[in-house]
Formats: sequence, C-alpha cells, structure tokens
Amino acid sequence: MLEVVDTIEALRGRVADHRRSTGSIGFVPTMGALHAGHASLIERARRKSGIVVVSIFVNPLQFDRADDLERYPRPLDADVELCRRLGVALVFAPSVAEMYPVKPEFLVQVGRLANHLCGKHRPGHFEGVATVVLKLFEIVRPDEAYFGEKDAQQLAVVRRMVTDFNVPVRIVGVPTVREPDGLAMSSRNVRLNAAERPLATSLYTALRKVAADVQAGATSAPAITGQEATLIPADERLRLEDLELVDPDDFQPVETVTDPVIAAGALWVGNTRLIDNVRCTPRARS
Amino acid sequence: MLEVVDTIEALRGRVADHRRSTGSIGFVPTMGALHAGHASLIERARRKSGIVVVSIFVNPLQFDRADDLERYPRPLDADVELCRRLGVALVFAPSVAEMYPVKPEFLVQVGRLANHLCGKHRPGHFEGVATVVLKLFEIVRPDEAYFGEKDAQQLAVVRRMVTDFNVPVRIVGVPTVREPDGLAMSSRNVRLNAAERPLATSLYTALRKVAADVQAGATSAPAITGQEATLIPADERLRLEDLELVDPDDFQPVETVTDPVIAAGALWVGNTRLIDNVRCTPRARS
Repeated sequence: MLEVVDTIEALRGRVADHRRSTGSIGFVPTMGALHAGHASLIERARRKSGIVVVSIFVNPLQFDRADDLERYPRPLDADVELCRRLGVALVFAPSVAEMYPVKPEFLVQVGRLANHLCGKHRPGHFEGVATVVLKLFEIVRPDEAYFGEKDAQQLAVVRRMVTDFNVPVRIVGVPTVREPDGLAMSSRNVRLNAAERPLATSLYTALRKVAADVQAGATSAPAITGQEATLIPADERLRLEDLELVDPDDFQPVETVTDPVIAAGALWVGNTRLIDNVRCTPRARS
Repeated sequence: MLEVVDTIEALRGRVADHRRSTGSIGFVPTMGALHAGHASLIERARRKSGIVVVSIFVNPLQFDRADDLERYPRPLDADVELCRRLGVALVFAPSVAEMYPVKPEFLVQVGRLANHLCGKHRPGHFEGVATVVLKLFEIVRPDEAYFGEKDAQQLAVVRRMVTDFNVPVRIVGVPTVREPDGLAMSSRNVRLNAAERPLATSLYTALRKVAADVQAGATSAPAITGQEATLIPADERLRLEDLELVDPDDFQPVETVTDPVIAAGALWVGNTRLIDNVRCTPRARS
C-alpha cells in the first residue's frame, strides 16, 4: 500500500514504522516527471532493499536559471501512479516551504568535483544538489540510495560527499535507460519538439564515436574530443556546450587516456540542454 | 564498563549494540584535555541520555594557526580516566588518518554565522568545526549532543547546521563552568603562566560590566562596548581582539539593544587567545 506524505515529520514516522517491520530502507531521490530511467532505479531498489522510499521534489537550490526551474515538469498524479504500480512503499513530496522553511545559511561545498562540465556551466548547481541530497539523507536515513549513471557527475558528487562526511548509506549507480534510438531518458526530453527530437541523438552518437576512438587506441584527449565538426552534425539548432574525457571518480579532465574514463557531454538542442555520458575503456596494452 | 575505540567501524558497531539495549545515545564531542566544563557536559548527558559517547579528536581542519594545533594539549590517558569516573560508556579517539583518510573535497559552508568574532579572526575555523561535527554526527548518530555555552558562536553554528541540514539530533547547550575567580574553563588555560593567570579574568569582568550596562538601560552597542580603556586593564600582555553584542541565534552584530543579546569577546593574554561570553538581558520597558 503506497502512502504519500508531504511533511518531514510524517515521513520520519512512517520510515521508523517500516524500519521496525522490514529490512533495509532503499531511497530513490527524484525531481519527479518520472520516466523509464526512474522506473529502473525503483525496480533495482525493490530487488535489493526492504522497502522503497521515493522523494519527489523540484529543488530550487540546484537551478541556476529561473526559466528552467519554472518550466520543469511536475506531473505529480502520474508520478504517484507509477510509484504505486512499481511497489513503492512511501512517496515523500514536500513543498519548498517544508524543505526550506527559512533561507538556508549552510550549504555543502563540493570542491573540485564541481569545477568542470555541469559544475562549470551551472554555477551553484552541484552545491544545490549536494545540499538537498544531504538533507534528504538526514530525513529518510536510508540504508541504500539509488542514482542514475546518466547524471554521472552528480553520482560522483554524491559518492564523494558520502565518503567525506561519513554518511552511512550505500550509493548504488544504475545504468542509463535509453530510447530505442539511443537518446538517454530525461525529464527534459518532453521539451523537444518534433523537429528537434531526431537531432537529440547526436550527443550519444558523438559519445559513442569517442568511446570507439579510445577503444581503437587513441590516447590524446584533445585530439579525440576536439573535432566537433566530425562529432556533431552542422545544424543551427545544435550547440555543443561540452565534451570532455574525465576521471570517473573525481571528474577532473584527463589529457592522456591510460585508464577507463568517462566521456561526458552537454548539447543544446534548441532551448533544451541535454547531458549524457559513456564509459570509455582503452585498448588493453600488450 | 568504559570502552575506548579508535576506528569508525568499531565505534558504529558498539553504538549499534548499545542502541539495541538502552534508550537514547548522548554524545559529547571534545578535543580532549578535559576539564570541569567537559565534566559538566558529560554529567548532563548522563542524566538525560541512555548512554554517553565522548569523542576526543583534535581536529586539524578547524585550526587556522599551525602552532595552536601543535601546542594543543593531548593528555589522552587522563581524559579516558575522567570519562571512566564519570560513567561514560564509549570513548571514540580516532587518528587524523581515520577521520580524514584522503584530503576532504567536501566542506560545510557556514554562511553569515561565521562572518563575525571567531569566524572573522580565524578564517575557516567554523567551516572546520561544522564539517567535523557533521562527520561525528554521521558516525555516532546520536539522539542528543551536548555543547558548552562558553563556545557560544560554535553552539549557534551547530544549532543552525542541524536545522538547515535536517539532522535529527537534539542540541543541548550547557552553561559555562568557571574557576572561583570567574575565568571560564578552557583547555587553553593551562598555557597561561603564573603572571598571566590573574590577568585572564579581565575578559569576564569586562563582559559582566557590559551586561550590567545593558541591564541598567544602555541600548547603544557602540557606546556600551566601545570604551575599551574602561573595560580592560591597561597592560601590555592584554590585547582585546573583539568585544561585540550579537544576536543569540545568528551572531549578527546588534546596534541597538532591545532584546536579549550575547556579549562575546576574545582576549589575548600573552600568547594565549581566550574567549568568553555572557547573555545580556535589557531592562524590561514599562
């Protein structure tokens, strides 16, 4: 029986009840607008954890642009229905006032993991993510928490936060779910119009080319990622914001590829910014 | 039976055992060199909490001066013996490598609570305090945590951190314990030589004068705290670093006193920096 609660006190009370009666508490933090990628997180949590708690909260602190926050989809009824079908025990859907009753003075300072890619292009984004994830961890106190690999930098940030702050929660990364043509599932995909939608696969195509280059023996990151013209089709609706090879743990740029790296990119398709990444494994040296 | 553990894993295991068998977990975080002030925290915890955990860790992250860190006293055996006499269940005395196995990327950003007094004079101090307290809270997961009112700004920082991050721990402030002549108990008092020791009471004397002025109806903070010559004896070994009236919750300076404030000060006595504070309640207006 799914329950939906919107206050911290109610959530804590229900989690405590479940903790007494079941095994571990699995937690899937989301901003709602749930799609097959979220379903995959929830299904994984269902298999591994005693009960599953899903939070649905569009966190203002992690948006650098007011229009992006405003346009972010919020289909709460459909989200709750999906959670019900997937066997979620508790949905936590707090208001902004419940999560931030006063302007926060304290923030989580992320350090160099936020210096590149989304951290560079979206000032304050990862501080906002880390802060709300820490708050949600304190509210839910889960044993395991599930995050999508599609947001690879976010996953690295959360993993390192939990290590640095000794938060006793196991972070589980879950593989990206894709549309049949390869586009990574994202709540922002609904903003693409019919003309933009086919173009949106360009990012994943480029990332796979990069991974193939690495697999084929290329080692110079600037040479691999620098040829934008061959990676992204020439189209005025497409603007590549980033394409970098980074260390999987600390998201620092890699100049010469000797170990597995993550190729991560951000592509503007019209007015929609999409991100994606693939893991690149260099050819084994003989 | 007191147990002393030095690893996070051992501490968590023993706390879990105690949690199953007793009521609440009370926590007294310290940097060791325990004195009557700490004893008062522990006694308060003994009365209120099921079992008491004391941490002893000189946290490098909160020291702005290398010599202060180096000279900080570390009488571990005596500290453990005092804990034993006071009925402490668990002492957690980790190494620096146990607490910071790698250089921390993530820090707690304190905001405006750190803009004044010790936060201004000791850059990074409260970020270091907040970070280690958050880590210790994640390691111990106490129900209650006890802090001395002598470190009033630290207490305000911890209270606000717990609020902003939704940490489910009750913060208990415990009144300052003083020597017979009024000097606030501090681990740094042992650094005072015989000639300096009598001078060290000057700070508390000044703070009481300020409180008396407020009680007598004075409302202008600059007028109350500005007359250093009448507050601190002229002596080349004494240097008043700070004397401010601040809001008890957010430690912002108060210009006109209408509600209770904290008079907080820092005094150098030779090479030793001492801090103290008193609560000042304005005369009730008729």
